[in-house]
Amino acid sequence: MTGNLLKGKKGLIFGALNEHSIAWKVAERAVEEGAEIVLTNTAVSIRMGNISELADKCNTIVIPADATNVADLENLIDKTMEHFGGSFDFILHSIGMSPNVRKGRHYDDLDYDFLQKTLDISAISFHKVIQVARKKDALNEWGSIVALSYIAAQRTLYGYNDMADAKALLESIARSFGYIYGREKHVRINTVSQSPTPTTAGNGVLGLGDLMSFAENMSPLGNASAEDCADYVLTLFSDFTRKVTMQNLYHDGGFSSMGMSRRAMRTYEKGMRFEDVQEHQYPFGKTDE
Amino acid sequence: MTGNLLKGKKGLIFGALNEHSIAWKVAERAVEEGAEIVLTNTAVSIRMGNISELADKCNTIVIPADATNVADLENLIDKTMEHFGGSFDFILHSIGMSPNVRKGRHYDDLDYDFLQKTLDISAISFHKVIQVARKKDALNEWGSIVALSYIAAQRTLYGYNDMADAKALLESIARSFGYIYGREKHVRINTVSQSPTPTTAGNGVLGLGDLMSFAENMSPLGNASAEDCADYVLTLFSDFTRKVTMQNLYHDGGFSSMGMSRRAMRTYEKGMRFEDVQEHQYPFGKTDE
Amino acid sequence: MTGNLLKGKKGLIFGALNEHSIAWKVAERAVEEGAEIVLTNTAVSIRMGNISELADKCNTIVIPADATNVADLENLIDKTMEHFGGSFDFILHSIGMSPNVRKGRHYDDLDYDFLQKTLDISAISFHKVIQVARKKDALNEWGSIVALSYIAAQRTLYGYNDMADAKALLESIARSFGYIYGREKHVRINTVSQSPTPTTAGNGVLGLGDLMSFAENMSPLGNASAEDCADYVLTLFSDFTRKVTMQNLYHDGGFSSMGMSRRAMRTYEKGMRFEDVQEHQYPFGKTDE
Amino acid sequence: MTGNLLKGKKGLIFGALNEHSIAWKVAERAVEEGAEIVLTNTAVSIRMGNISELADKCNTIVIPADATNVADLENLIDKTMEHFGGSFDFILHSIGMSPNVRKGRHYDDLDYDFLQKTLDISAISFHKVIQVARKKDALNEWGSIVALSYIAAQRTLYGYNDMADAKALLESIARSFGYIYGREKHVRINTVSQSPTPTTAGNGVLGLGDLMSFAENMSPLGNASAEDCADYVLTLFSDFTRKVTMQNLYHDGGFSSMGMSRRAMRTYEKGMRFEDVQEHQYPFGKTDE
Repeated sequence: MTGNLLKGKKGLIFGALNEHSIAWKVAERAVEEGAEIVLTNTAVSIRMGNISELADKCNTIVIPADATNVADLENLIDKTMEHFGGSFDFILHSIGMSPNVRKGRHYDDLDYDFLQKTLDISAISFHKVIQVARKKDALNEWGSIVALSYIAAQRTLYGYNDMADAKALLESIARSFGYIYGREKHVRINTVSQSPTPTTAGNGVLGLGDLMSFAENMSPLGNASAEDCADYVLTLFSDFTRKVTMQNLYHDGGFSSMGMSRRAMRTYEKGMRFEDVQEHQYPFGKTDE
Repeated sequence: MTGNLLKGKKGLIFGALNEHSIAWKVAERAVEEGAEIVLTNTAVSIRMGNISELADKCNTIVIPADATNVADLENLIDKTMEHFGGSFDFILHSIGMSPNVRKGRHYDDLDYDFLQKTLDISAISFHKVIQVARKKDALNEWGSIVALSYIAAQRTLYGYNDMADAKALLESIARSFGYIYGREKHVRINTVSQSPTPTTAGNGVLGLGDLMSFAENMSPLGNASAEDCADYVLTLFSDFTRKVTMQNLYHDGGFSSMGMSRRAMRTYEKGMRFEDVQEHQYPFGKTDE
Repeated sequence: MTGNLLKGKKGLIFGALNEHSIAWKVAERAVEEGAEIVLTNTAVSIRMGNISELADKCNTIVIPADATNVADLENLIDKTMEHFGGSFDFILHSIGMSPNVRKGRHYDDLDYDFLQKTLDISAISFHKVIQVARKKDALNEWGSIVALSYIAAQRTLYGYNDMADAKALLESIARSFGYIYGREKHVRINTVSQSPTPTTAGNGVLGLGDLMSFAENMSPLGNASAEDCADYVLTLFSDFTRKVTMQNLYHDGGFSSMGMSRRAMRTYEKGMRFEDVQEHQYPFGKTDE
Repeated sequence: MTGNLLKGKKGLIFGALNEHSIAWKVAERAVEEGAEIVLTNTAVSIRMGNISELADKCNTIVIPADATNVADLENLIDKTMEHFGGSFDFILHSIGMSPNVRKGRHYDDLDYDFLQKTLDISAISFHKVIQVARKKDALNEWGSIVALSYIAAQRTLYGYNDMADAKALLESIARSFGYIYGREKHVRINTVSQSPTPTTAGNGVLGLGDLMSFAENMSPLGNASAEDCADYVLTLFSDFTRKVTMQNLYHDGGFSSMGMSRRAMRTYEKGMRFEDVQEHQYPFGKTDE
């Protein structure tokens, strides 16, 4: 909205699949605020989505890379630095996927190869991106790195499964590497814990619609949208937040600080009233998660 | 259950009103586990409740004291030490009251004299008790002090009003004084953040019944009862927990670590379904808290 | 730096005493970023400091008000709305003082009248400001309120005394009122937990210099300055953070997420080495806090 | 000390290497308090340590198992149930190891195969143990599972490296599985965040001695020892804590709630004084962690 919040900044953005993606919104808004960007995603996601449209809009390129693959990341960082003619200022990590969720494996029946993939894609990839960037001295002094997280890292939500553990690991990596990169080069690393958001990834999670409704009713400001999130992330890339690091920042309309709202309780109370009457309509077995 | 967890320990218990009080259960259980105790409450509470029954059961005395009054507390500690023939081992603070809640003043229309009373009764009294006890060197080395708290100190629950702020202050006092009393005499100070409990005090809170149902459904182990709480508090008075201090300990069946349970969501979903149909039965104005 | 981050916004700023004050820097920077402001402080602080200089710079007025006095606050809000010709967008609360600290009363020997003043000035004043503003419908939709806090609200620091408890209460008020004001009018309320800062208020705290050195060495980005803090606070007043509420946001160079840094440990290790040799130079009695 | 806190309870204990191990102390104390136990460790650890001595003392058996290997765990649970003649009541997980730490790989130069091993051994093994136990219905109603953790999961300590991330993952698994196992069979799952402890594992961490001294000086009650920890863990296995679940419980003499103690600051101040004079004695390069 200022038109120049990120004037002169350059950044690399992971995870834009389509126009519902938070990363997509961040890319658009960053450019509107004066930044130059480079986009990246896996080859599969590039095919599945329409990131090339976004690249056109943002007047930039897309460099394919699998964020779990160090060689890919090395190539990505090299190419990005070539594109920018040197080092850059910010990175957005918006990547997450759980094969256990996709394949319907419950948390008490995890496939451990899948779990390893969940962690590798959704959390360890963040470490790999940073480690490669740092080794190549890709980021400028006072650079900024952000990853997107979710409150499942602190509180259990049925159905979120091993993604909760991945988010906890992701947030820990932000702290651990934030210390190292901060003392060395004043690069800050934070995670943004975002409201449930109807992205393509979010839609994979069991019962997201109902959860979004509950979160909407619990949060005094309502759920934060992908657009809201983009704006907030921009402040973290800007020079206005240079001393914020190693933090997990809730961007959720207040949800994280709520125990119970009147609005959510009204709906809940109605549910209690109709508990018995309607039971036959809800054929959940006792092992549903 | 062991019969001797607190063998040889002596303690002072604030806040037993009647058989629903958590303090009442702590007193009973402490004696069963081998402790000697002294009971105290305000003169009004002594008249309103039936603490003398408890004193008979526990073979002890009741010393009236207003915990907001330093002179009363000095007398209380003196009398308690007389009764025990010297210093003692533990203190339970189970005191809380909000005139704003009682008089129906909403959080956006607080009476500030009432607020001062809420804080004085529910939080500052804890500081006063400890300061007086410490000045009189009333507690033995490795003694233990516990106050009862509630998750409203961290997360807002509609209707809990200024008691939320009082609990936040109470928990801070436990930390601040825990440092001082710990380094000096190894006395530990903790708060127990208990499930909503149908005590006489708890019943004053708006909509407690429905909240308890929600908490019951959110908590994998269900709400913790007053009896459960008593057992947990005993461990904190025992020698098994001598290095735990300055903590707020959730005793809530898991509620504090839950974002959403399947069980609570089922009820909530039903409420969503009947949102429109039943609206006329719920005559809440838009300014209800 | 953008010149228009707060374009069109209007706000009220409490607590600018002199050019070291965080509130002073916020005022200056807010105006640079396009905001209009009104300044306020107590009559005594207005005399002691040089806020009229700041008012000149910012092309605005100073309205005297004691933030613990509801009548003063009512007058202040009325006058501020007159000045702006209507409602406004943001409020900064940067107020704190402990008579116990000033008079050298240790935490285990608090004067309870002083404690009440500490809480009234440093925390309850925040509630009063918000309650008065809300009753007068002084803030626009999606307005923003910020108070300055310190990590003593979560972790005990020797010498910080009852200000720790005041900050815990302050942060709780932000959450409690954040819920009410958020659901009603989308006004967000947050606290910023700032590095130790050499303001006039900060200098009153025992041993601040040494603590600042420790914090500097622990924080990967070093301590955040008053200027840094001002920039961060501006983002919270801007439209980029509209869905952030009820949060306590650490602005501290990473301190809050550090357990131990190598740099701080090197200094500490040296201290260990000279523990015995130098003891005579440090004549602390056993009761020092 | 009561002699019967765990009377009639049966449990499985992972991770006793030698008499310095926390698991060793837990085993000894559990038996003293009336429990029957089974011991397990990897074949290598069984050879390296002297767990058979412990087994003799505790009148029990040792069943070798690699906790990262599901087949081993299945055999272990079967054999344990055979030994006990049925299901049992508690499990202790005291397992952690980082090949990156061992091989001197810094956090900004992690080997990703090593990282995977760190996570598998130190965190995912906890999930595997619980998943296998649950599938075999090995635990009684109201059973209790505890894993040992460290504050590095929340705050970065130089040199703790990828073990910090493993502990964050471990604590998340406790929450995630605590929900499932709790709602189904009232089994509670918690982690104990213990003071730095001079076990064989702890000694592998860079600079543990100095860190222990700092923690000792910061903690009002001093560091918690392995013996202290054993006592605390027993309360979590007992029936006195049946409603505590999904928690990370600090057992650290107050360290986690401290920002700065007077005692630690005195040492630090001395170090500051001798900063320049003694610099030549400390040949750290600028890249040390």
